[in-house]
Amino acid sequence: MADTKWVYQFKEGSATMRDLLGGKGANLAEMTNIDLPVPPGFTITTQACNAYYDSGKQFPPNMWDQVVESMNALSKAMGRDFSDNSEPLLVSVRSGAKFSMPGMMDTVLNLGLNDEAVLALAAKANDERFAWDAYRRLVQMFGKVVMDIDGDFFEEQIKLVKQEEGVDSDPEVSAEGWKKTVERFKAIVKEQYGQEFPQDPWKQLELAVEAVFASWNGKRAVDYRNHYGIPHDLGTAVNVQAMVFGNVGWDSGSGVAFTRNPATGEAKLYGEYLANAQGEDVVSGARTPKSVSELAAEWPEIQQNLSDIANKLETHYRDIQDMEFTIEGGKLWMLQTRNGKRTAAAAVKAAVDMVGEGLISKEEAVSRTEAEHIDMLLHPRFDEEAKKKSKLLAKGLNASPGAAVGMVFFDADTAEQKAKEEGKAVILVRPETTPDDVHGMLAAKGILTQHGGATSHAAVVARQLGKPCVAGCEDIRIDQSARTFTVAGVVVKEGDLVSLDGARGEVYLGAIDTVAPSFDDQHELRQILEWADDIRRLQVWTNADDPEQAARARRYGAQGIGLCRTEHMFLGERTEKFQDAILAESDEEFQSVLDNVLLPLQRDDFYGIFKAMDGLPVIIRLLDPPLHEFMPSREELIEEVATLQAKGATGPEFEAKKKLLAVVQDMHEFNPMLGLRGCRLGIMMPPLNKMQVRAIFEAACDAAKEGVDVHPEVMIPLTSHINELKAIQPLLEEIAVAVMEEKGIQIKYKFGTMIEIPRAALTAGEIATMAQFFSFGTNDLTQMTFGISRDDAERKFLLSFVEMGILPKNPFQTIDADGVGRLMQIAVTEGRATRPDLEVGICGEHGGEPASVKLCHKLGLNYVSCSPFRVPIARLAAAHAVLEEQAERMND
Amino acid sequence: MADTKWVYQFKEGSATMRDLLGGKGANLAEMTNIDLPVPPGFTITTQACNAYYDSGKQFPPNMWDQVVESMNALSKAMGRDFSDNSEPLLVSVRSGAKFSMPGMMDTVLNLGLNDEAVLALAAKANDERFAWDAYRRLVQMFGKVVMDIDGDFFEEQIKLVKQEEGVDSDPEVSAEGWKKTVERFKAIVKEQYGQEFPQDPWKQLELAVEAVFASWNGKRAVDYRNHYGIPHDLGTAVNVQAMVFGNVGWDSGSGVAFTRNPATGEAKLYGEYLANAQGEDVVSGARTPKSVSELAAEWPEIQQNLSDIANKLETHYRDIQDMEFTIEGGKLWMLQTRNGKRTAAAAVKAAVDMVGEGLISKEEAVSRTEAEHIDMLLHPRFDEEAKKKSKLLAKGLNASPGAAVGMVFFDADTAEQKAKEEGKAVILVRPETTPDDVHGMLAAKGILTQHGGATSHAAVVARQLGKPCVAGCEDIRIDQSARTFTVAGVVVKEGDLVSLDGARGEVYLGAIDTVAPSFDDQHELRQILEWADDIRRLQVWTNADDPEQAARARRYGAQGIGLCRTEHMFLGERTEKFQDAILAESDEEFQSVLDNVLLPLQRDDFYGIFKAMDGLPVIIRLLDPPLHEFMPSREELIEEVATLQAKGATGPEFEAKKKLLAVVQDMHEFNPMLGLRGCRLGIMMPPLNKMQVRAIFEAACDAAKEGVDVHPEVMIPLTSHINELKAIQPLLEEIAVAVMEEKGIQIKYKFGTMIEIPRAALTAGEIATMAQFFSFGTNDLTQMTFGISRDDAERKFLLSFVEMGILPKNPFQTIDADGVGRLMQIAVTEGRATRPDLEVGICGEHGGEPASVKLCHKLGLNYVSCSPFRVPIARLAAAHAVLEEQAERMND
Repeated sequence: MADTKWVYQFKEGSATMRDLLGGKGANLAEMTNIDLPVPPGFTITTQACNAYYDSGKQFPPNMWDQVVESMNALSKAMGRDFSDNSEPLLVSVRSGAKFSMPGMMDTVLNLGLNDEAVLALAAKANDERFAWDAYRRLVQMFGKVVMDIDGDFFEEQIKLVKQEEGVDSDPEVSAEGWKKTVERFKAIVKEQYGQEFPQDPWKQLELAVEAVFASWNGKRAVDYRNHYGIPHDLGTAVNVQAMVFGNVGWDSGSGVAFTRNPATGEAKLYGEYLANAQGEDVVSGARTPKSVSELAAEWPEIQQNLSDIANKLETHYRDIQDMEFTIEGGKLWMLQTRNGKRTAAAAVKAAVDMVGEGLISKEEAVSRTEAEHIDMLLHPRFDEEAKKKSKLLAKGLNASPGAAVGMVFFDADTAEQKAKEEGKAVILVRPETTPDDVHGMLAAKGILTQHGGATSHAAVVARQLGKPCVAGCEDIRIDQSARTFTVAGVVVKEGDLVSLDGARGEVYLGAIDTVAPSFDDQHELRQILEWADDIRRLQVWTNADDPEQAARARRYGAQGIGLCRTEHMFLGERTEKFQDAILAESDEEFQSVLDNVLLPLQRDDFYGIFKAMDGLPVIIRLLDPPLHEFMPSREELIEEVATLQAKGATGPEFEAKKKLLAVVQDMHEFNPMLGLRGCRLGIMMPPLNKMQVRAIFEAACDAAKEGVDVHPEVMIPLTSHINELKAIQPLLEEIAVAVMEEKGIQIKYKFGTMIEIPRAALTAGEIATMAQFFSFGTNDLTQMTFGISRDDAERKFLLSFVEMGILPKNPFQTIDADGVGRLMQIAVTEGRATRPDLEVGICGEHGGEPASVKLCHKLGLNYVSCSPFRVPIARLAAAHAVLEEQAERMND
Repeated sequence: MADTKWVYQFKEGSATMRDLLGGKGANLAEMTNIDLPVPPGFTITTQACNAYYDSGKQFPPNMWDQVVESMNALSKAMGRDFSDNSEPLLVSVRSGAKFSMPGMMDTVLNLGLNDEAVLALAAKANDERFAWDAYRRLVQMFGKVVMDIDGDFFEEQIKLVKQEEGVDSDPEVSAEGWKKTVERFKAIVKEQYGQEFPQDPWKQLELAVEAVFASWNGKRAVDYRNHYGIPHDLGTAVNVQAMVFGNVGWDSGSGVAFTRNPATGEAKLYGEYLANAQGEDVVSGARTPKSVSELAAEWPEIQQNLSDIANKLETHYRDIQDMEFTIEGGKLWMLQTRNGKRTAAAAVKAAVDMVGEGLISKEEAVSRTEAEHIDMLLHPRFDEEAKKKSKLLAKGLNASPGAAVGMVFFDADTAEQKAKEEGKAVILVRPETTPDDVHGMLAAKGILTQHGGATSHAAVVARQLGKPCVAGCEDIRIDQSARTFTVAGVVVKEGDLVSLDGARGEVYLGAIDTVAPSFDDQHELRQILEWADDIRRLQVWTNADDPEQAARARRYGAQGIGLCRTEHMFLGERTEKFQDAILAESDEEFQSVLDNVLLPLQRDDFYGIFKAMDGLPVIIRLLDPPLHEFMPSREELIEEVATLQAKGATGPEFEAKKKLLAVVQDMHEFNPMLGLRGCRLGIMMPPLNKMQVRAIFEAACDAAKEGVDVHPEVMIPLTSHINELKAIQPLLEEIAVAVMEEKGIQIKYKFGTMIEIPRAALTAGEIATMAQFFSFGTNDLTQMTFGISRDDAERKFLLSFVEMGILPKNPFQTIDADGVGRLMQIAVTEGRATRPDLEVGICGEHGGEPASVKLCHKLGLNYVSCSPFRVPIARLAAAHAVLEEQAERMND
């Protein structure tokens, strides 16, 4: 240990040493080594930090000696002396872990000043005010970050001094004022910390280094690492660097610049600077900084210099750089560089441009594009300026991204009527939504619910529809009878305007202007996605229930329909017809409604979809939900009948209501999720599925006869036992064959099943004897594998569990690899063992979530299927999966 | 195929050839070969039956040739000629599958008679009446079983002939009368069947053989095989045997006898016979048969002969034999032997006796004892006091023991419908039963018949099914059209409740309370179970929630408590207190109810259980169900509030009700099974579980201080992720340690979890890092693995699925080995890989079901835990598992 090298001069390090030197230290070293003007300094390693903790918070042997040695070398290089107050060497001390992390100690500047050195600095700079200002900054920062004294104590004193001097801003405070401030700050330190502010620069340094180490295990840093899954044993490095000052005259200054525009991606230096200022002054907003484009006029040499450095850095790092610089007496110093944060648009444009410039490969461009970028680029957004001026009412879950403005209505019927008949932009506000509300959701611009999580009905349907949704907004109190909701004292009435930001889960009062993107116009994005298509192995299909959705998804790059839900086709104005069938008093009546009413409607639905998907596979799922979902609410009927009864109602209408209640009561299930639905319903009531298969094949044959290349695949839902398929599939295949005979045309088709029940996965080898394809219904599979009902759980405990860290992620957003993923693995392996050409995909909400898409790639699925809007994301994620796999293979 | 031997002479076969010759044929062959007096004959193999079906219902090549050859050999042996009407050879034709099966063709007697042969027979026997009676029997049986003509047509004619002759009973009908009957029967055949009754004996034989084959796939036989899980590809054999006649004079007769008493097991010949009668006359009840004990006086030689044969057969078969015999002209012929059906008491007594007699080994005795026997022996009986106060309606034969209470229904279809669809307890009341009634008997709790004796259809089937049966209850008068029965002026209508005491043959009006029989008195059973204990490897624990249950289970042989459900302790009069806790408005109020009200109650509960289980482990499960289960019904509250509202209610009571409804609404879950319960509740509300653990350890320490040897094991329910255990278990272990410190005593304890969610099984390796034991909750595990809610499914589709053969068994009764069993296998293997001494058991309802117990043995579990009444069954099944394993190993 004693021989360990704990300290690296900047010139000894490099960008590849992030683990040891932290991100900041590695970049300072890299810049030093490519001969950029970096103030000299050194880095104490992350290893030292870990050794410090391992030995019960003691500096490891020899570390301090190496620090002293390095400080002495630094003194020498700078022509100063850290031990001599007459030749003060001032340094900054900063933490620098591998990943930047809020909650860790930031910076102490001007370290090395004391009551004597301040005078020497004043003399040397010939600026007493500058020196005392520097000193008070040291005491203030040191007190706050090293000694953990509440910053308010210092701020109050500064206010007081400004009052005393009758000035408004810090720059106006006099030398005397800052001198007085230093005295008062030192008194605060004495009182709050219990010891004098240390006059010995070495003591200052020792305490500051220890404070950086300590901040690694501060509560906020630990929580942050827990949240983002960053290991706790990385440790932080400490960077000690000679100070340069941008505030020593009008030939000095400080600035921040990006090598390209971080908002648009435009390949042009972008940033701000202030003359005669320190870095913190640029971002504080006290003075208005100038654009770096003005540098050329003010300091042409500096401009040229900075521009050269920017090019060098970008070429070196092959990415947009975010730089900090200081000009001290006309000399440019680089204080930091790092990959620049950027907007989605900028990220995409820069990536494409850089490929054009030969700076990066197509794979790198794809790899750098993030799913969030696509999300942001494709959903309408609020104008940020307009948003700032609006009143934020409440925050809920960001259930479905996008921006929506409209009048609030509190039930689906009214919402639909206002939208359809009066052409109003509507926001549907509900305690939570059910399939009964879908017509209202269809008509609305956005949905706001009080209850329900990211995979609640409202959220799922909204994402499917591409409508903004804020769900689980528990701050609002809906009063259905008054037709209002209340939040923080504000009462929002029916018809009032609100704006929803679905990407952020925000609800604003009033209308905010929006800007809507078009996929066709996103040339760079489309370029990236085409590159992604060349890379990926996994196909991307879509969940689409009507021709319009299908067409849109196809524009977004969908290669098939992985899930066409037929239940949506029984909703809206068709609900009543379907209820007629359910309530039919004889088999004949039931069959007649099926044949004469529902069959033609379904056939038309399918016909349009087949045409839209010419040449591509279309998986149609047979009716899945329990029949009671199509009936009126049981609770409302109980209430209604009780009310009528209490009022002494009689007569046929009351009797009919009572009878309806009896039917609905009989259909009631304690756990409908695990009840009579899916193929169970099909087996108990074969005419329903038979009608659907007839509609599918009549439509497919009709389309095929017109030259459309149709690939229907019939999906049987909720299988748990091979015998269920044996019971129903042959009946349905018979109909397929019969229809093709009737129509006089042969088409290719498949019959397959959903794998959404654990037992189906566990017996997939058997199930594949009947099923020609598997489609994982990961929503239900997650519900059953976890024993969690998503309708209830997100509201009751699931989100708390994620917050408490009990669940690493919400398993309804990201597939749980260990449980659900293991079942999928079993199903894929054993299904393919039975039927090597088994087509396997996923059609749950997870199909558009990047981590889940990567899991699907790993498991060797043929495709993922997701809502149209998520198709581009899935295309990207599928390519990422390949690139990550290649990277891992190279690391092995 | 042509070379295949399709036909075996009796002397060519043996008892080991059941697969090929069927049970009846194999036994006839065996008896022939041990030199018992068996009328000669042959068997057409089951293989021929299967070949018949495989070739589209054609006799396989060469089969008929072999039949002809065998018939000619038989003719020769008997000195007759099947082709010559002047020397008629009469044979019986019977089906005979590997397992005896109702619904299969029974018997055609006297085959070979025709219009000519009848005259030769009359001349030969010198008895015209006998010959014509034999002929009419042939036409009648042939018509019914071969030609499928409704038997009522024939019965009506017999009635008519008796009227015409002015006699009451069949034996009184004259030769002329039977001759006339034959003519009329032939006319019926012509009319109903469309063809003449075949005069050619060979044609008769061909049709009869084909009818036997056809009956293998008759609906009733198929249903029966489905019900009992008998494979459909076994096929049936056909036995053709020379006729002997018990009705050719007063030195002839027929009888049925058991080698031991089939009701009590007493080692004494038991049975009935009738002089001058055919076998069917003995069972028909037309004449009252004599007991075989009277044989010694009437026919001492026959008695000695039969008794010797009985001994020989029992020694040969090493089991109770059920024999049919005929005496023709003073000579004893054995027509059949088979293992005798017996009551549970007889089975157990005979097994123990036979071990004593050195006839069988202890292992064989255990292996022969069936779970159903224990069920019946321990099955509740009527409370004698309650019985005394009830109205005895009638007495009949004590045909099958047990106590049954239910509503009377008068036909099998209605009985089945009421039982299955409406879940009613049903008593099937019939004049007498036939194989057509079996589905109703299966569905009924008990059977009551007006006619028929101890060997009637009703009696035999009821004993086999273990259902109480009162047969031959001639006091009752059934009016089928009115759907009533009348007895001594009391009219019992359809749907009225009656109670049957099958052991005493008593019928009571109304429902009588039942009591459990005393296990202590069942000496033979206890002997068998002790032998079983020596054999089994699997331990048997019990599910018990109070000291009384615990003590009872211990008497039944339980070796620990595998599940003590604490939620039952919050029910009854404690519900209100628990509701107070749930409705507490502050954490303090909540904690106060827990500390002051519930803690002392729970401590007392546990203390009693620990004392009762001194020396044995006790697993206590922390609160599992969702809290809303302890609250008033949501639906009732909705109704109540709506009613009050409609009536214009106001005031504090109404407000309180509304508030309660709001609370209950808020607690409502769409799928409570997958909701906020188990450890989820514990994690969201830790004080609840903490109170429970404190109560457990306070009770355990108190008991331990008094010298009780306590082994508490705390079970955390509904775990799905290791982090749930990490979140709650340490908090609870802390309390355990704290209580032991407070009480100043150390006890051994474990913390473990239920494995009842698929994900827990799939990640058992991780979960075992925290859990010291696993207990499979196979009810919930089945629900989630299958995606089936038991509450809903059995009513809506599950039972239909079992009936339709989609599910081989109800997975809530027998563990589904492929799905649920596979998850259990994963959990056991991976849990033990992490923690080799992991204790693994099962505490679902399956723990007492024999097939499931065997699966648990195979999976290497440490124990099964079941309700106290099922403990003896589980002990036996665990021993069976070992014996079957040994047998399989020997077969390998």
